[in-house]
Amino acid sequence: MEQKPMNILCVAAHPDDVEILCAGTLARYSQAGHTVTIAVFTSGNMGDAQIPPAELAFIREKETREAAAILGAKLIWAGIDDEHVFPNQEQRRIMIDILREADPDVIFTHSPNDYHPDHRYVGQLVFDSYFQKGLPHIPNQQRPACRFGQAQVYYMDNLGGIGFLPTEYVDITAVFEIKMQMLACHRSQVVAMQELANTDLLGMVEVQARFRGLGAGCRYAEGFTRLDAYQRGLTHRILP
Amino acid sequence: MEQKPMNILCVAAHPDDVEILCAGTLARYSQAGHTVTIAVFTSGNMGDAQIPPAELAFIREKETREAAAILGAKLIWAGIDDEHVFPNQEQRRIMIDILREADPDVIFTHSPNDYHPDHRYVGQLVFDSYFQKGLPHIPNQQRPACRFGQAQVYYMDNLGGIGFLPTEYVDITAVFEIKMQMLACHRSQVVAMQELANTDLLGMVEVQARFRGLGAGCRYAEGFTRLDAYQRGLTHRILP
Amino acid sequence: MEQKPMNILCVAAHPDDVEILCAGTLARYSQAGHTVTIAVFTSGNMGDAQIPPAELAFIREKETREAAAILGAKLIWAGIDDEHVFPNQEQRRIMIDILREADPDVIFTHSPNDYHPDHRYVGQLVFDSYFQKGLPHIPNQQRPACRFGQAQVYYMDNLGGIGFLPTEYVDITAVFEIKMQMLACHRSQVVAMQELANTDLLGMVEVQARFRGLGAGCRYAEGFTRLDAYQRGLTHRILP
Amino acid sequence: MEQKPMNILCVAAHPDDVEILCAGTLARYSQAGHTVTIAVFTSGNMGDAQIPPAELAFIREKETREAAAILGAKLIWAGIDDEHVFPNQEQRRIMIDILREADPDVIFTHSPNDYHPDHRYVGQLVFDSYFQKGLPHIPNQQRPACRFGQAQVYYMDNLGGIGFLPTEYVDITAVFEIKMQMLACHRSQVVAMQELANTDLLGMVEVQARFRGLGAGCRYAEGFTRLDAYQRGLTHRILP
Amino acid sequence: MEQKPMNILCVAAHPDDVEILCAGTLARYSQAGHTVTIAVFTSGNMGDAQIPPAELAFIREKETREAAAILGAKLIWAGIDDEHVFPNQEQRRIMIDILREADPDVIFTHSPNDYHPDHRYVGQLVFDSYFQKGLPHIPNQQRPACRFGQAQVYYMDNLGGIGFLPTEYVDITAVFEIKMQMLACHRSQVVAMQELANTDLLGMVEVQARFRGLGAGCRYAEGFTRLDAYQRGLTHRILP
Amino acid sequence: MEQKPMNILCVAAHPDDVEILCAGTLARYSQAGHTVTIAVFTSGNMGDAQIPPAELAFIREKETREAAAILGAKLIWAGIDDEHVFPNQEQRRIMIDILREADPDVIFTHSPNDYHPDHRYVGQLVFDSYFQKGLPHIPNQQRPACRFGQAQVYYMDNLGGIGFLPTEYVDITAVFEIKMQMLACHRSQVVAMQELANTDLLGMVEVQARFRGLGAGCRYAEGFTRLDAYQRGLTHRILP
Repeated sequence: MEQKPMNILCVAAHPDDVEILCAGTLARYSQAGHTVTIAVFTSGNMGDAQIPPAELAFIREKETREAAAILGAKLIWAGIDDEHVFPNQEQRRIMIDILREADPDVIFTHSPNDYHPDHRYVGQLVFDSYFQKGLPHIPNQQRPACRFGQAQVYYMDNLGGIGFLPTEYVDITAVFEIKMQMLACHRSQVVAMQELANTDLLGMVEVQARFRGLGAGCRYAEGFTRLDAYQRGLTHRILP
Repeated sequence: MEQKPMNILCVAAHPDDVEILCAGTLARYSQAGHTVTIAVFTSGNMGDAQIPPAELAFIREKETREAAAILGAKLIWAGIDDEHVFPNQEQRRIMIDILREADPDVIFTHSPNDYHPDHRYVGQLVFDSYFQKGLPHIPNQQRPACRFGQAQVYYMDNLGGIGFLPTEYVDITAVFEIKMQMLACHRSQVVAMQELANTDLLGMVEVQARFRGLGAGCRYAEGFTRLDAYQRGLTHRILP
Repeated sequence: MEQKPMNILCVAAHPDDVEILCAGTLARYSQAGHTVTIAVFTSGNMGDAQIPPAELAFIREKETREAAAILGAKLIWAGIDDEHVFPNQEQRRIMIDILREADPDVIFTHSPNDYHPDHRYVGQLVFDSYFQKGLPHIPNQQRPACRFGQAQVYYMDNLGGIGFLPTEYVDITAVFEIKMQMLACHRSQVVAMQELANTDLLGMVEVQARFRGLGAGCRYAEGFTRLDAYQRGLTHRILP
Repeated sequence: MEQKPMNILCVAAHPDDVEILCAGTLARYSQAGHTVTIAVFTSGNMGDAQIPPAELAFIREKETREAAAILGAKLIWAGIDDEHVFPNQEQRRIMIDILREADPDVIFTHSPNDYHPDHRYVGQLVFDSYFQKGLPHIPNQQRPACRFGQAQVYYMDNLGGIGFLPTEYVDITAVFEIKMQMLACHRSQVVAMQELANTDLLGMVEVQARFRGLGAGCRYAEGFTRLDAYQRGLTHRILP
Repeated sequence: MEQKPMNILCVAAHPDDVEILCAGTLARYSQAGHTVTIAVFTSGNMGDAQIPPAELAFIREKETREAAAILGAKLIWAGIDDEHVFPNQEQRRIMIDILREADPDVIFTHSPNDYHPDHRYVGQLVFDSYFQKGLPHIPNQQRPACRFGQAQVYYMDNLGGIGFLPTEYVDITAVFEIKMQMLACHRSQVVAMQELANTDLLGMVEVQARFRGLGAGCRYAEGFTRLDAYQRGLTHRILP
Repeated sequence: MEQKPMNILCVAAHPDDVEILCAGTLARYSQAGHTVTIAVFTSGNMGDAQIPPAELAFIREKETREAAAILGAKLIWAGIDDEHVFPNQEQRRIMIDILREADPDVIFTHSPNDYHPDHRYVGQLVFDSYFQKGLPHIPNQQRPACRFGQAQVYYMDNLGGIGFLPTEYVDITAVFEIKMQMLACHRSQVVAMQELANTDLLGMVEVQARFRGLGAGCRYAEGFTRLDAYQRGLTHRILP
């Protein structure tokens, strides 16, 4: 690749969101020599009807680390309680520190009209924090300001593409198996969705990638939209 | 009716919002044998220039119970202070318990771009809570989780139809008188609007129902939009 | 089914468009006892680099009749030259006669922002003609006016869902095999796309139906939007 | 009024469209001393199931002249066959001459997404012609170019407000009776809609004006949107 | 001017936002005899990499008072910490008191999709408070309710016009020099942007005003959109 | 540049549209070794109040060839009468031949909501023809089919950015002087706009490029949107 190495950050609400919506793109970045960080904002600890939250958080962090390791990605595990994301001052402080730790050139996160409140508020917290990551005088942060540079924010697709029309695509055909291996690490989810909802998570994610491939003109794709902002109107491609 | 009985919930911000925007539809549901719950999130206690808040709350609860009784609907009176709805953790807890109490198949609430902040934030709280009502491990709730099933959310019209284009209609011609009787129970509002703002509330609501009837092809109608979400793309009609 | 029998019409631009986008829904209507008419506006005769137009038109009409026969649907073959749909007076006359022949309660056609001009203009001609089908004094028509009744128009999805967010879904799981059998009748297209573009048409259509099923909450679905118009705001469901 | 007198033009597709959607606004202009021209593009001659077109055209022109006379407005009767508006070269020539004859500062016409093709294409012809009215070298016109000045185009509401959210309102409370008198001149329509469709046209128009009044904050209003175009971003109000 | 004097309020997030986006319009109001209040919600104290927040707040308040003095405008300096605007109860109380102090007929503030969180949340707080400013029973306010009258809210443009299409324009050609003098008072920003970001703030603002002038048909303009709300559909112009 | 050489086509309605909206981008392509074709659909022969059409066409073709020569671009001069673009069969034949002659990988044209009908209809003709350029059996064409490959279509900005929000930017800072030299070749327009409308065309175009630079984060930019279509969802950048 001809670009200089970039820091790539994906901030998701729950432990398997990255794999479902963005892992192929992260794999492409990783193979091209960029530094990839995965930040998972909640521990996903409310997501099972039987397993108690503390135990589930333990399981899901372990699965997530396993998945991140496949990419050689750094993992930031924020450990917020599942279903408890709020765009308030306390969680904004946490998000600013996540951004500072990753010092990203490119950020992926959930889009504003997602069906799950945790998804929507994680996306909002990213949008609220991406300007402040580079300001040195924000009080009560754990980490010093990172570069002020203008990180680009991309919004991820959602399952079923509800209210989502991608404007950017990444061809993930060559890395599709990596994406599926990462997803398969989330055994607790794959099993729970199969048993409780009779849902084949791996199959659903393949259908979604095939469908986005129909739009993109390749076999498998991930779709995104871009958050446009002042002086961030891209004049070159930074997606893989 | 050929459908199995459903639980219908309307969550409104103020005591007369249900009557203005949704009572005809609720009457149709009620007549068809479904269970109807009306939840009023605030007591509407700031809505008069003269009457002190505590007294006004008392009056409005009484009027609201009278209106709900016409339908035989259950009333949930949350009693939040008028003009004080916020999508924060405390009020989300309250909203989750409201949803758990009603265990709804269908929810009606205010649409996102409504002119009144209480309306907007009640709608946001519903959207934030409809997933969590069925999760058993959410801490600090008063009520146990209800069914996890996928409640459908419909957004109600607003007076004057500002920024609102209905995509679904319910013919309320046969129950229009019931709607007007329910509205007339809110004497404090009907009188206050007449005296203070020289506004004929009953006449306004009739104009609105007639206008939506022009769109729907019947004499009186109520209009709605539907919140689409993953796996909630309806394949059958659940409106009356 | 409890509805009285309706006349269902699908007007598509090319011989396989119906099968790709609407055949499952038509099969559901057919099984429920409604009368289904398929109108194909062009002969699809320009769609092959080798086969001369006249020969291709002959092949495609034969394939289309075979597919329609699976449903027991009536076929209207307008025979306009492929790539030559224009919303002019001459073709509007033809479209008015198609609508009069089918006398539809429900019409399916292409949506306005489709990538192919024939698709866009067939949809425009339907929108231009659905009012006039019931007016007795339109001159130079081959057929007398049909019922003036207010036909409902639904716009079909497109491959890849480009610029298309369904607002209505039909569960086609039970009739998916019928849809695929109908599509398989279009051998000239299935083979041509495989050989020329290395594209598996049947596989693509399955992916699309699975993806719309993710949104709808069933295994296979077809998605639609509805053309809203004065006094056509539906107060009951007419989709299967 | 403090503005200098302007030329106001309303171009509608059918004889009663002006009265339904714009007559109050035209009455306000007229009372303020502006010159009002009403152009009716078709004769409305297909609009009755019994009366032959030639006879109906005669009746409707007479009714329209009577209505226009109430305002003292000039009437341009283009006499195109009802249901036969097309945005082609021939009809554009006619529209350019209409604009040249009225030499308008302000134009009202149908909005792009109207349910009736004649409405949509009249609006399109106006948009296609408003630049050319002032160009002296357009061949084959009956009339010389009028002023090149930048006429402002407003789109009218439609019955039921389908797909239409007004951005501008005119308070027509003081002239509402004039609007209703003008509408009542269209006896053939008022009677036909009552007998054939059991529709009270005058009542419908009153409901619409009341509803727009709810949005506008007055008793009766007409609503509009504005066609924005290069150097036409208004910096003063030209509506009454 | 023929209108009776109005109270005009501009609520901005940071000390130079008013000058960049609205000062020309405020100057027009001021010259026409209306009362202009400028409210700056944060002190802008985090906006420099070197200068400590307390010192920067002192500098920026002084610069802002100097700019406001050019207009003879009243300044409300809320002094919230820069980058710390949240639409919570505490800051809503502050915003309600700001509105009560200014008792506005017209309010200008930031639009909802602005790139900076402080901008977005100031706009949200205004929208959340404009109804409550006139309600006498809101507890814990510093100021008594002002008039209940329906203030009109206009959203300001943003630099580069990202996601912003003006629907209203004000011709500021005659007062453009005043706008630039006011902007020049913000020396700390003009210098910081020049030195740190090599950005010519005055030049950028001139380009923006010229560009909006291209849309408006004059040399310099400011562009706005209007927040439409029930009974606020304007029937006369209140912009200068 | 690392891409293989592409054929770039800009199809504009009038002789100076290319220079105003796209010339910087074309210059970037040209410098990178791609083949650039400029197609001007009308002769611009109605654009002057004094100069007769035939003479003006002669002048404008000469100016346009001069401008194209600066880029070393091929010019296709279709010579349609100014103000006479229609999306009919005759002009579609001409547009198909233009596309076949250029055999483009990338096409730039006018966007759908442009204020000038010639602009809108040229864009529509391009959208109607880009699929057919590669079909060998279209009758009555002057040129054989070109490659079937999927040309990408970008819509150009318009003066004042009316209804236009760029989603893609090209940094034209390094080639801005070339753009201005090309524009200056259109002496008849530069002089006419100065004398008749007191408009400084060169200054306006500089303001527009500066403004788009504010969005893009560079000194001068041109902005575009992309027409998305089935299998055309770009997975790499083809803009310079």
